[in-house]
Amino acid sequence: MRRQRIAIDMDDVMAITSEKFLKNINRLFDKNLSEKDFKGKYWLDIITIDQYKACIELVHEEGYFLDFPIMPDAVEVIKALNEKYDVFIVSAATEFPNSLKEKMIWLAEHFPFINWKNIVLCGDKSIISADYLIDDHPKNLKTFLGKSLMFDAIHNQTVTDYQRVMSWKEIATILL
Amino acid sequence: MRRQRIAIDMDDVMAITSEKFLKNINRLFDKNLSEKDFKGKYWLDIITIDQYKACIELVHEEGYFLDFPIMPDAVEVIKALNEKYDVFIVSAATEFPNSLKEKMIWLAEHFPFINWKNIVLCGDKSIISADYLIDDHPKNLKTFLGKSLMFDAIHNQTVTDYQRVMSWKEIATILL
Repeated sequence: MRRQRIAIDMDDVMAITSEKFLKNINRLFDKNLSEKDFKGKYWLDIITIDQYKACIELVHEEGYFLDFPIMPDAVEVIKALNEKYDVFIVSAATEFPNSLKEKMIWLAEHFPFINWKNIVLCGDKSIISADYLIDDHPKNLKTFLGKSLMFDAIHNQTVTDYQRVMSWKEIATILL
Repeated sequence: MRRQRIAIDMDDVMAITSEKFLKNINRLFDKNLSEKDFKGKYWLDIITIDQYKACIELVHEEGYFLDFPIMPDAVEVIKALNEKYDVFIVSAATEFPNSLKEKMIWLAEHFPFINWKNIVLCGDKSIISADYLIDDHPKNLKTFLGKSLMFDAIHNQTVTDYQRVMSWKEIATILL
């Protein structure tokens, strides 16, 4: 029998990425914002479109994706999931060509048990077929035909369409 | 109504890649092999495993994926397909981390009408959901649940399990 397949997003699910974005906002525009200022809001509710674009410019730079911290318990839980399910890492990355190799390096460093065959770097995730999708972005969950788990993030606080998971420990209790 | 989705492989389907591999065999091992020597055979029927590995080493080098010639009529036919279908470029590329950005550059140069959202760089293509898959590798076609079109290549001459297409002109007559 085929094992069930879990597709797992990287940014803000496996890797803590919005923290760096927030630091860059504070640094570039001399602000002192914290995560709680963004609770239930989009970036553009707090900063201007020009400020947002300046921060996105930095995302295109070499090295941006290399040093993200790991989400708590992600390594242990994904390792255990990988024993029981076919785990695929599915990251919307083609918008940032420099990120592609860096994401492979980051995964090899922190999740060496993930085979290159099980990594997908894409744009529109509606092409992905799996039994579960763990992702923080409603736009990715919306087109998914399997079971969705929405990883809690500062930008999805108002979304109620998907089962919200607060941590990798909670995912372990659901899937293991 | 949702448009039908076509997933299209890159190497030896959009890009002529085996020619460079063959040239490297001839150059490295002082041979004078041509495509016809490989008709219906695998690389390893003609060269040793060590010779094959030496050529694969070169595939890992920077720049290897930047200068492939385009398969005849690929641009015109894929452009027309892109008007009628949701076209996704799906390349098994994560084995070669340097290839990832280079494939994006090659696509942007020769197929600028393909949006980054519609590019998938992956390993195991069984995670792809589409109505059609155009690919030269039986291993990719085998797990695909939609309609398969096997693009003629020197290494798939003995395979009879899929509808073989000889050219992009032939694909145009089938899909347009």
